[in-house]
Amino acid sequence: MKAIVLQNSPGLNNLTLVERPIPTPRRQEILVRVGATALNYRDVEIANGTYHTAFNLPLVPLSDGVGEVVAVGDDVTRFKVGDRVCSTFWQRWVGGSFRMAEASYQRGGPVDGLLAEYAVLDEQAAVFTPKNLTDVEAATLPCAAVTAWHALVTEGAIKAGDTVLVQGTGGVSLFALQFAHASGARVIVTSSSDEKLTRAAALGAFVGINYRKSPEWSEAVLEVTEGRGVDHVIEVGGPRSFQQSLKACARRGQINVIGYLGGKEGSINPLDIFTRQIVVRGIPVGSRESFEAMNRAIEANDLHPVIDRTFPWTDVAGAIRYLEAGAHFGKIGLIHN
Amino acid sequence: MKAIVLQNSPGLNNLTLVERPIPTPRRQEILVRVGATALNYRDVEIANGTYHTAFNLPLVPLSDGVGEVVAVGDDVTRFKVGDRVCSTFWQRWVGGSFRMAEASYQRGGPVDGLLAEYAVLDEQAAVFTPKNLTDVEAATLPCAAVTAWHALVTEGAIKAGDTVLVQGTGGVSLFALQFAHASGARVIVTSSSDEKLTRAAALGAFVGINYRKSPEWSEAVLEVTEGRGVDHVIEVGGPRSFQQSLKACARRGQINVIGYLGGKEGSINPLDIFTRQIVVRGIPVGSRESFEAMNRAIEANDLHPVIDRTFPWTDVAGAIRYLEAGAHFGKIGLIHN
Amino acid sequence: MKAIVLQNSPGLNNLTLVERPIPTPRRQEILVRVGATALNYRDVEIANGTYHTAFNLPLVPLSDGVGEVVAVGDDVTRFKVGDRVCSTFWQRWVGGSFRMAEASYQRGGPVDGLLAEYAVLDEQAAVFTPKNLTDVEAATLPCAAVTAWHALVTEGAIKAGDTVLVQGTGGVSLFALQFAHASGARVIVTSSSDEKLTRAAALGAFVGINYRKSPEWSEAVLEVTEGRGVDHVIEVGGPRSFQQSLKACARRGQINVIGYLGGKEGSINPLDIFTRQIVVRGIPVGSRESFEAMNRAIEANDLHPVIDRTFPWTDVAGAIRYLEAGAHFGKIGLIHN
Amino acid sequence: MKAIVLQNSPGLNNLTLVERPIPTPRRQEILVRVGATALNYRDVEIANGTYHTAFNLPLVPLSDGVGEVVAVGDDVTRFKVGDRVCSTFWQRWVGGSFRMAEASYQRGGPVDGLLAEYAVLDEQAAVFTPKNLTDVEAATLPCAAVTAWHALVTEGAIKAGDTVLVQGTGGVSLFALQFAHASGARVIVTSSSDEKLTRAAALGAFVGINYRKSPEWSEAVLEVTEGRGVDHVIEVGGPRSFQQSLKACARRGQINVIGYLGGKEGSINPLDIFTRQIVVRGIPVGSRESFEAMNRAIEANDLHPVIDRTFPWTDVAGAIRYLEAGAHFGKIGLIHN
Repeated sequence: MKAIVLQNSPGLNNLTLVERPIPTPRRQEILVRVGATALNYRDVEIANGTYHTAFNLPLVPLSDGVGEVVAVGDDVTRFKVGDRVCSTFWQRWVGGSFRMAEASYQRGGPVDGLLAEYAVLDEQAAVFTPKNLTDVEAATLPCAAVTAWHALVTEGAIKAGDTVLVQGTGGVSLFALQFAHASGARVIVTSSSDEKLTRAAALGAFVGINYRKSPEWSEAVLEVTEGRGVDHVIEVGGPRSFQQSLKACARRGQINVIGYLGGKEGSINPLDIFTRQIVVRGIPVGSRESFEAMNRAIEANDLHPVIDRTFPWTDVAGAIRYLEAGAHFGKIGLIHN
Repeated sequence: MKAIVLQNSPGLNNLTLVERPIPTPRRQEILVRVGATALNYRDVEIANGTYHTAFNLPLVPLSDGVGEVVAVGDDVTRFKVGDRVCSTFWQRWVGGSFRMAEASYQRGGPVDGLLAEYAVLDEQAAVFTPKNLTDVEAATLPCAAVTAWHALVTEGAIKAGDTVLVQGTGGVSLFALQFAHASGARVIVTSSSDEKLTRAAALGAFVGINYRKSPEWSEAVLEVTEGRGVDHVIEVGGPRSFQQSLKACARRGQINVIGYLGGKEGSINPLDIFTRQIVVRGIPVGSRESFEAMNRAIEANDLHPVIDRTFPWTDVAGAIRYLEAGAHFGKIGLIHN
Repeated sequence: MKAIVLQNSPGLNNLTLVERPIPTPRRQEILVRVGATALNYRDVEIANGTYHTAFNLPLVPLSDGVGEVVAVGDDVTRFKVGDRVCSTFWQRWVGGSFRMAEASYQRGGPVDGLLAEYAVLDEQAAVFTPKNLTDVEAATLPCAAVTAWHALVTEGAIKAGDTVLVQGTGGVSLFALQFAHASGARVIVTSSSDEKLTRAAALGAFVGINYRKSPEWSEAVLEVTEGRGVDHVIEVGGPRSFQQSLKACARRGQINVIGYLGGKEGSINPLDIFTRQIVVRGIPVGSRESFEAMNRAIEANDLHPVIDRTFPWTDVAGAIRYLEAGAHFGKIGLIHN
Repeated sequence: MKAIVLQNSPGLNNLTLVERPIPTPRRQEILVRVGATALNYRDVEIANGTYHTAFNLPLVPLSDGVGEVVAVGDDVTRFKVGDRVCSTFWQRWVGGSFRMAEASYQRGGPVDGLLAEYAVLDEQAAVFTPKNLTDVEAATLPCAAVTAWHALVTEGAIKAGDTVLVQGTGGVSLFALQFAHASGARVIVTSSSDEKLTRAAALGAFVGINYRKSPEWSEAVLEVTEGRGVDHVIEVGGPRSFQQSLKACARRGQINVIGYLGGKEGSINPLDIFTRQIVVRGIPVGSRESFEAMNRAIEANDLHPVIDRTFPWTDVAGAIRYLEAGAHFGKIGLIHN
């Protein structure tokens, strides 16, 4: 079979197409023919060598993908040949608290990812794809969508009538917008682009705030919430954004810290968390239990991931460069067949 | 001012229009000019003398209503003259567990209700009406809607993608249908009337089951859920219905026991709760915290209570007889001005 | 190696000592040399053929046991040779809701149990034994202790100052007594034996009630709780006992339905759950996450399971007969080496 | 009656003994004869004018106290003459989320406190004192003890076997130590004084760490927890301490931000909350529901607040100076009769 591996050292030039034997599934493993994969910012960092952890090479990249089961090992009971499944990010986090994840088991590094014609998955680290999604749509779910769901639903217990602040229009943010909207919540989106805000409104956003025009955007948030503030924040911007988020929160608002697209520099005084009586938590993607609950919501509400563009899987370097350019709105997929 | 009181003894004939002085609000009390009230089955039982508790008479009936604040007592800070408010059922249950309710404080008996031109409310036992509702729409909320919300959201933590079984098309059931639908859940409704099922579908129901045609309706539920069963049941039917609900539940499904419209006779073996790993709970209307959260959802999703018919408030006996006839779909309101 | 299997058909006479090859651990499996096992009522029913499900024979009985890891298969990362581990009851329930358990995977039937010199476990279905326990003490934990913990802690969120009602002095009940006492709760124990109540008091029980002398024991419970009732019930008695439990509960009390030692006959009116605003749930043992949290509590508080008596493992039939006689106080263990 | 008021402007010299009429309780109010009060750091700041908010003067200081009910107003049903009650800090936070508190209603500023012979309380803002406590012991509960309980139990859901890090030996920290110990948790205490660590050990602390000797005390925490870290932190030290707390946490550990005894200067990078997957929350004392649950735990476990020293209430300035000196271990009480 063909696979792409990061050879010798990081760098897009080291993403190399190689020939490997099709693996044989062992006990509790399934073999899938990969139909589609999708990019996350983590994959970009791993490929470029800027991720906070360095993995042993060669490594097959990409945690997120969809495949059809073509063979099963001993003791496999969850799936059968012909089933269509998504990979999960944490290989050992079936359910419960993040303490139950075994931290070293992340797909796409250190565990080999799905950028190949075939891949082997543990049956405990796979879920049925939502029936209403195409392969490439379902391939976008394992990291970004599960992160948004885990933050808002599993940890945040979002309910109808809540207000959610979503920063930007990256993968996690757009999934958060869709899930919050489907849950009956109001969603406020920030972006530097009026055009992207218009597209967010079409997905159900209640209000859009252009943070270029309103750098102190927490004031705009308080205005549209009649001074109350928001109940949930999907915080992807980094420390500087966090300062605005603190001000934009309702009493007992929840800030879910997910990333640092706006940079890693900056600081806060933790006493502000006390003064404003806020809850802050880090979100580590999510469990398979979150994934499966999310898929039921995707089917029941016929939600479809926003896909900006797809590439042939063998042009993963092109897809990464496109993502790095930052003009996208939604996810970037890779077609495997 | 005019008021209607249950005089001397229960019975619709004893609902008497009387003249009373307009009360003066004391510390933490507000005086409201009542705009609309609404009926609950509890009110019917109290008026007929079939409620499980007998209250001291004379009693002004009806727990649910809306009014405009026309005067405030000392120390009132939550409301000002001109605000439009709903009464709450539990006079002392601000938030937290039902243990925090002080059980003797229920409006409409033993505490005087709102079937009058004016009424005095403790400011802790009133909430702002949703801005998108008319008086009579908002008057239907305090018991039926709060019960549905408290069961599904506050206690049940409903999430998008869950499946909810709603029995019949009475007040609590239709609110449950609307809240579940707005929360991104799938709703299955049972009824003895195909016409009512059609109307429930227009409100967002996913599937309707005519229990006249399918007395073993749990089988139909399992069929439409592909064998999985439902996550939440709004159990208003009584013991016989409960037996079907037990069979219709998914593993770890939740049955909210709310009433007994199908009769009080019958029994279950509690070991069935064990065998099927189900959670069962009684729902005592809900707290003011639930009410306020619900109102945010009503505004954010522009939900409107289903009102079957309204009567002039002085024809409360006529309204009760209409409710007893059982042909209604939704709530019955009383117009006060 | 030697193993005892239930041959051909149920019945204590069919528990047969056989010679089998020592198994080889496959991917994610560990091989343990069994040090001790322990009996549960479920094992008695399976051996006698009275369990609600019939399993394929031959079957190695007993879900609960302790062993030392002597070999590991591919990809094993949680354990190494020399570690001392307990088996878990649900082979696939790592954490989260019971929905994440895969119901067919129960050890001791249909999955072979530990009544042998060696056994193979999936590393996801094993936990480190608490350091402060002997083998036979730790062997008593997987079903009875995890059930008590899951009911009171994981599902019940017990806190200091709560009151817990524990029925009888069987395995689950004594663990519930110990865990509740260690959690700062008050424990009320019922028994037909004053002598057993004295022993329960020595384990920390606040009050003992002899239900032979007080058949309407809910009255005694209300008396010692000054009319408030209890917050948690460990309901092991069956439907008749359940009726008393309903009356013994505080508002919003929780009844955990675990078994039917007092018989399966009887019924309740589910409207009583509504009237008293109680929460009832079935408890299906518990997850590995519960098990591991429990073990930290056992170590931190140096708790020791109450063991009534031990037998050589080859005398499992004698041990079962002793359990059936019903005079025991605590668990019955089997020594394997 | 006699009362002490902060006259004209802040400053200990402006704490003036005045004569005032005994107030008359209005609707839902009770009049209490104050038996004892207790100091919190907030009271010290208010008296000195360093609190973040300035209140209208004259103000009767002190939020925390105990009194005997000597008269009741209209509609009072929770208490009767002769009952012994504690004040609560939030006058309107009965239960539920902090959103249900009405923020301007804090006793001891802006609402008059208990530093007087008599005080009027709303019956919704008072609780029965635990029966096992003296007046001055119970007077220490409303702020410090409720804060510790609300953080660990109501918000933190502490369970037996958890590990808790308590910073220093101030009021909140010692209550947290006692509640955590009574809940079956292990407690690690930091202090600059070996003598105070010895006294903390006598209260049940598992390990003491002298942060003078170990400025990087998170390393010592990781060592005694075998690398696992702690589940709960009572963070009272300010931003610099917070940095150590982040490192001392287990995955999904909870940091409760309560104060800033170690100063307000310093900062953190919020991405550290993400990296370590921690939950951080501000703790605003707690609800009456928390207070009443805590009192049941105090009675059930016969816990007694640690009182360093008492003063006559008229020497409140002396008591404040003693507190400011910082040599105390536990609470400082004021005796009113």
